[in-house]
Amino acid sequence: MRICVLNGPNLNLLGQREPEIYGRATLADIERLVRDSARELSVELEWFQTNHEGALVEAIQQLEGRADGALLNAAALTHTSLAVRDALLAVQVPFVELHLSNIFAREPARHHSLVADLAVGIVAGFGPQSYVLALQALAGRLRAG
Amino acid sequence: MRICVLNGPNLNLLGQREPEIYGRATLADIERLVRDSARELSVELEWFQTNHEGALVEAIQQLEGRADGALLNAAALTHTSLAVRDALLAVQVPFVELHLSNIFAREPARHHSLVADLAVGIVAGFGPQSYVLALQALAGRLRAG
Amino acid sequence: MRICVLNGPNLNLLGQREPEIYGRATLADIERLVRDSARELSVELEWFQTNHEGALVEAIQQLEGRADGALLNAAALTHTSLAVRDALLAVQVPFVELHLSNIFAREPARHHSLVADLAVGIVAGFGPQSYVLALQALAGRLRAG
Amino acid sequence: MRICVLNGPNLNLLGQREPEIYGRATLADIERLVRDSARELSVELEWFQTNHEGALVEAIQQLEGRADGALLNAAALTHTSLAVRDALLAVQVPFVELHLSNIFAREPARHHSLVADLAVGIVAGFGPQSYVLALQALAGRLRAG
Amino acid sequence: MRICVLNGPNLNLLGQREPEIYGRATLADIERLVRDSARELSVELEWFQTNHEGALVEAIQQLEGRADGALLNAAALTHTSLAVRDALLAVQVPFVELHLSNIFAREPARHHSLVADLAVGIVAGFGPQSYVLALQALAGRLRAG
Amino acid sequence: MRICVLNGPNLNLLGQREPEIYGRATLADIERLVRDSARELSVELEWFQTNHEGALVEAIQQLEGRADGALLNAAALTHTSLAVRDALLAVQVPFVELHLSNIFAREPARHHSLVADLAVGIVAGFGPQSYVLALQALAGRLRAG
Amino acid sequence: MRICVLNGPNLNLLGQREPEIYGRATLADIERLVRDSARELSVELEWFQTNHEGALVEAIQQLEGRADGALLNAAALTHTSLAVRDALLAVQVPFVELHLSNIFAREPARHHSLVADLAVGIVAGFGPQSYVLALQALAGRLRAG
Amino acid sequence: MRICVLNGPNLNLLGQREPEIYGRATLADIERLVRDSARELSVELEWFQTNHEGALVEAIQQLEGRADGALLNAAALTHTSLAVRDALLAVQVPFVELHLSNIFAREPARHHSLVADLAVGIVAGFGPQSYVLALQALAGRLRAG
Amino acid sequence: MRICVLNGPNLNLLGQREPEIYGRATLADIERLVRDSARELSVELEWFQTNHEGALVEAIQQLEGRADGALLNAAALTHTSLAVRDALLAVQVPFVELHLSNIFAREPARHHSLVADLAVGIVAGFGPQSYVLALQALAGRLRAG
Amino acid sequence: MRICVLNGPNLNLLGQREPEIYGRATLADIERLVRDSARELSVELEWFQTNHEGALVEAIQQLEGRADGALLNAAALTHTSLAVRDALLAVQVPFVELHLSNIFAREPARHHSLVADLAVGIVAGFGPQSYVLALQALAGRLRAG
Amino acid sequence: MRICVLNGPNLNLLGQREPEIYGRATLADIERLVRDSARELSVELEWFQTNHEGALVEAIQQLEGRADGALLNAAALTHTSLAVRDALLAVQVPFVELHLSNIFAREPARHHSLVADLAVGIVAGFGPQSYVLALQALAGRLRAG
Amino acid sequence: MRICVLNGPNLNLLGQREPEIYGRATLADIERLVRDSARELSVELEWFQTNHEGALVEAIQQLEGRADGALLNAAALTHTSLAVRDALLAVQVPFVELHLSNIFAREPARHHSLVADLAVGIVAGFGPQSYVLALQALAGRLRAG
Repeated sequence: MRICVLNGPNLNLLGQREPEIYGRATLADIERLVRDSARELSVELEWFQTNHEGALVEAIQQLEGRADGALLNAAALTHTSLAVRDALLAVQVPFVELHLSNIFAREPARHHSLVADLAVGIVAGFGPQSYVLALQALAGRLRAG
Repeated sequence: MRICVLNGPNLNLLGQREPEIYGRATLADIERLVRDSARELSVELEWFQTNHEGALVEAIQQLEGRADGALLNAAALTHTSLAVRDALLAVQVPFVELHLSNIFAREPARHHSLVADLAVGIVAGFGPQSYVLALQALAGRLRAG
Repeated sequence: MRICVLNGPNLNLLGQREPEIYGRATLADIERLVRDSARELSVELEWFQTNHEGALVEAIQQLEGRADGALLNAAALTHTSLAVRDALLAVQVPFVELHLSNIFAREPARHHSLVADLAVGIVAGFGPQSYVLALQALAGRLRAG
Repeated sequence: MRICVLNGPNLNLLGQREPEIYGRATLADIERLVRDSARELSVELEWFQTNHEGALVEAIQQLEGRADGALLNAAALTHTSLAVRDALLAVQVPFVELHLSNIFAREPARHHSLVADLAVGIVAGFGPQSYVLALQALAGRLRAG
Repeated sequence: MRICVLNGPNLNLLGQREPEIYGRATLADIERLVRDSARELSVELEWFQTNHEGALVEAIQQLEGRADGALLNAAALTHTSLAVRDALLAVQVPFVELHLSNIFAREPARHHSLVADLAVGIVAGFGPQSYVLALQALAGRLRAG
Repeated sequence: MRICVLNGPNLNLLGQREPEIYGRATLADIERLVRDSARELSVELEWFQTNHEGALVEAIQQLEGRADGALLNAAALTHTSLAVRDALLAVQVPFVELHLSNIFAREPARHHSLVADLAVGIVAGFGPQSYVLALQALAGRLRAG
Repeated sequence: MRICVLNGPNLNLLGQREPEIYGRATLADIERLVRDSARELSVELEWFQTNHEGALVEAIQQLEGRADGALLNAAALTHTSLAVRDALLAVQVPFVELHLSNIFAREPARHHSLVADLAVGIVAGFGPQSYVLALQALAGRLRAG
Repeated sequence: MRICVLNGPNLNLLGQREPEIYGRATLADIERLVRDSARELSVELEWFQTNHEGALVEAIQQLEGRADGALLNAAALTHTSLAVRDALLAVQVPFVELHLSNIFAREPARHHSLVADLAVGIVAGFGPQSYVLALQALAGRLRAG
Repeated sequence: MRICVLNGPNLNLLGQREPEIYGRATLADIERLVRDSARELSVELEWFQTNHEGALVEAIQQLEGRADGALLNAAALTHTSLAVRDALLAVQVPFVELHLSNIFAREPARHHSLVADLAVGIVAGFGPQSYVLALQALAGRLRAG
Repeated sequence: MRICVLNGPNLNLLGQREPEIYGRATLADIERLVRDSARELSVELEWFQTNHEGALVEAIQQLEGRADGALLNAAALTHTSLAVRDALLAVQVPFVELHLSNIFAREPARHHSLVADLAVGIVAGFGPQSYVLALQALAGRLRAG
Repeated sequence: MRICVLNGPNLNLLGQREPEIYGRATLADIERLVRDSARELSVELEWFQTNHEGALVEAIQQLEGRADGALLNAAALTHTSLAVRDALLAVQVPFVELHLSNIFAREPARHHSLVADLAVGIVAGFGPQSYVLALQALAGRLRAG
Repeated sequence: MRICVLNGPNLNLLGQREPEIYGRATLADIERLVRDSARELSVELEWFQTNHEGALVEAIQQLEGRADGALLNAAALTHTSLAVRDALLAVQVPFVELHLSNIFAREPARHHSLVADLAVGIVAGFGPQSYVLALQALAGRLRAG
């Protein structure tokens, strides 16, 4: 089983900035954590980060045939990109939407997601652990068929 | 560590009704699944279901001193009960909001939660597995302190 | 054929209060009127009133297997209870929504019903006669299959 | 007692079109059904259908002196015609608003009626039977004075 | 100078209905009053009433070449007819919008006019005298060029 | 009969500014025009202008006993002053709301009046002639009793 | 193949009025242009114009059996007539919505169409050429089956 | 004179929770304070608290004949319960709405009360003293008749 | 202890106007009532009324150093003056917002206060007694420190 | 004459994905179809597709001097990109907005276009044929000058 | 060159109140700072402050002929006074809107300005330096003609 | 001191396009103007322009350590990019938002900025001079510490 983790804009800054909100783990730390978990679950992992909407769109387009599912932390693009939504509609690879922080405890512009209704499910608010839980959830769902 | 699972109205019907949406597992099946997972995590579990808002309010009031955290599937009361919110504000026991279905893929009245901003995090859309993931997430968070 | 009549909060006060709006008939008077009509239609009748949302939810849950259909005058809960809606969604027993008064001629908060789209049909504005008409309509519908 | 039945635009197509929604009864079939019921109730019936707002306005204007009450299925004009409302305000003949389908289970533009607050009551969702129930309701109300 | 007075739906009922609101003058009484005033002002008058939107549209279309200006009491169509607006845009004959009652002291649906921004001016609230004032205003404006 | 004309902020600038919109007549020119008309109608006239909300409130307060009615061109305060509304509610002297320009052909913030529903009627869009028409209308209404 | 062209209110004024917006072609000129194009496409054409909503409703009702498809320029009724929508729902003849002008570059009230979601497609903004393009599009679609 | 004090959900937690907001007084402390004040005012006091909407509805229903007036701190139900409103409409016992905190300085969902327009008056923001002031106000009003 | 009572526009008319709403007490009567109450509470009282927003702003500016607290009945300015809010923000003298009538039982424009969130608390609906209760409440709060 | 066809995000997936909605033609198939049509019309064609907003902005910037007009299928960016709008405002090359599907029959977020008011016209709903019709329309318009 | 600086309500309190927000500079300190800057720029300066809307309106009215431009810090009146807007429309003296604080980082009621669209430009957020920058900007613009 | 100037989409077109709105200065001209001003202020300047949201996000990410502050003219992205906001939140380098035109005098979609509340201050409406004023303001603020 192959799962792709897609990270959106500004996630490359994790760990260095606003640690009181996002914690001290860098995106590389999180990648390590998730790869460990993937190994236990016998999941092959692909990892991707971009600050460009177009690049995220194309990464989603290339999921089909290359991955059985995806974890998507689209960051700010969660709330503004209809193009990301269209790409997800097109490939129809099952995915889990995830967020490090509890987006419902932040400003109103972050309460509405343009992709949540397309996801298998949502995991939000558990910091780096959100990635691990999302991976477990998706792997379980894919294995259950 | 002691965690209380609070289930709101109509969840007592699980498994018998609308299986194409909610699956065939009964609430008792889910309780067994979660108790198994709790044992592995060395978590003591308390299980509660009610169709009455007042009873859910009082169950939340009694969390303090009796539980280190809670899993809350308030069902329809998620979207209409300010009294449940007030009880959660009062006891300030950490809790995870969970839903069997992906509430964002359902009708608009179910997109807004009156308690989500108070939760540690949210897990939604994975059927009975939502309970297990929420339990793992909360136990991890409580142990990390 | 067995039909259950479900009455929500404050309907136990009928006849004693605000007679210029709701008329002088008590809920017992209405029950007699409906039982007479049921006898003529060879319908077995069950009658229920509660001021508690949770009790109404449970009465609806118990419809299945015990009734072929229901008349629902949920009173104020018509406009505020998503839990009542969920119970109706779960049992899927055909029901008619009824109101003594013309709710569209009252304040705006009473113009929107959370259950109307689930009903077979709506009867409103004819005082106690609303119950009789709703019973005829439902019996006719059930007999027509 | 004389009651006028007023039918608005597109009701002349009943039975031929969209039978899965509106049933197979033509407007003529419904007229026969209602005339039978009127005979039983000793009510003299006048029947009218038009696709023109102005013609419906004038039919309402002519109610006074010619009818003791009216059944009104204004169809699409229910939701768009303030002129129909003004005519009803002017003649002040008691009327019942009726619909074949449950308008609350259809698209939002059909949830708001411009005349419902002026009606004695509303009957909706019972197909041709809506006419018969509305006739009974109105006749009963008129006889009760 | 030739001025056309255009009256919309339900104004043919004036005097007979709701005299506490609209007064006891019939539309014929008002026509006499306005014709007297027109004679004093040396204005030739054309008088028209219809309950049909299409007929009002065509009466407006025919203004050009036949009238120097118009008084328009579109009644309920003031608030619902974009076709009446389009006709007024097309002929561009100067007109005054008038109302018998103070529409701003009535229900909100009557506060917004679809034609007011196209009018030379508005006169509302003075009963039959609204017609006379509007005639004076329009005649004065037309003479001033 | 005594009628008071109340003019709000910035009307003292008439004639000097934006003549393409408001015309070349100064407020003094308009006062002369209205005084001529008042003489013909045997009406005693009082004339007032202020740029201060509080002063307009007090001028309205002093109407009672000193005037049989008022013409009110509250200018910008028409749309923002609840205190002017309260003063009009308190004295209950009949008044006509008037505007030089057609406020409905201007920006949306000028479409809603806080006092229109309290007025006998409204005259708008005829330039200085609006004052004369409003005076005629009010005098007629007061004489008719 | 037989296609009916349905034109709504005020289109009979084309060419004579507001030529800077709608051009100098009359509706007769456009009809000639479309008939030429129809001949080339071997399409039999029926042409209809009305200023009356009811007449447009009935013209749509009569499409079935008489036409394989329709071009609809409902003009102002595009934005206000639910009865036109109901007629289109009833006959379910494929149709193309067309407009001479770019309705999105005009006032907001013209941005929302009550029938666009029922159309095969939309053509707007190309003046008389909009009719020709719409005819080509519909003929192509009908031939493709 | 007999006055009933009705307390809604979560008020049983007073003093133990969030003392920085609600103060350190328990509901029992407040009851003592109010009973002292009642004695001075020669008012007989009945005291009630519930976390259940249905129980509050029934307590209000039972006011008639048993109390001359009521103090109502409905807490969260102030903002969500139409059934509480209906009960107050039915018994029509004069009541004062009271709140410990200044609800207007809290989140927007607490700014709108479903019962305030039915109250004699409102007292909010003075902590336990709100009860004493409300009692004085109601007693004064009842004695003044 | 020194408390200043600030009264806004139109309160100088009390007693003479709309006695069915505001009662027969004049503002001078109320002042006497409050002065009596102040004496009992050993509070020194300053009394102020104005119809001018700017004058109320300046009276609030001068509170600091001259008063320990204020009672504010800003009347219509409660709902429209951001400048009054800014003055209250600047001086930060504790104040109680008060109203003679129950503003929530009046028109919607009077339901929102621009200063309520800055107040210690609110008292509304008890006529002149609102002033006395507000004085007691504020004195109690100031003495409690 | 030289016309540039600009295609936005996800259009590179055409034909492979969701064929029940978008048909089986690939973007290359459509390009061939349009090139054939261009040859007949003696139009020189430039073809461009990108998934990146910035790249589309720059393609629009480069239109001037290189093309006489453009066909724009901005896909999801139609509804979210103000930068695309600004580029179109800057170059002022005439363009036609086109869509494969009828965007008005899809979800509401696709009903509003940020560029439609700048276009010569709109063509939507005819699948690949939308491109051909748009090309004909634009070529006709450009030749007419 | 002569420039007038107009300051609205509560700015006379600067320096004494809320120094953490507005800084410790008094309005007199700011005036000195601006006069220094004006001397360098060879600009003659007039300085004005008022707490009264009417007085600000009149100060604006008197700009014409007495000043080449204005700096306007209307404070709270920025958001509530249509009369200030009307005065600015009337005199059409170029002005710069300025604010000490960044109004977009404050409460929503301060995000919308009723005069910003009439200004040459806006400067906000730089404390007393906002005045100096606004003066430079306006002087530069006036000299550039 | 080092300040970075960040320019968003379409600003590379300055001077060539819509000179009546944006003036004839090219972005290179403006850069020269700002560099002159920077030299006088002893500020080291970095200059950047991009049409790509992702590139602007990364330029902001790289501010930290490389610049003491920034001037941001995000153009259309000001109103649509939450990713730009997130980048600014992450680096927390002080910045000034600037616009060439007065965005409040343009269409409503340009009135709301997604970054204004994070800025030190805003300068808008002074053409190229906006850059110079913003530079002075930021340099002054940074030097004041």
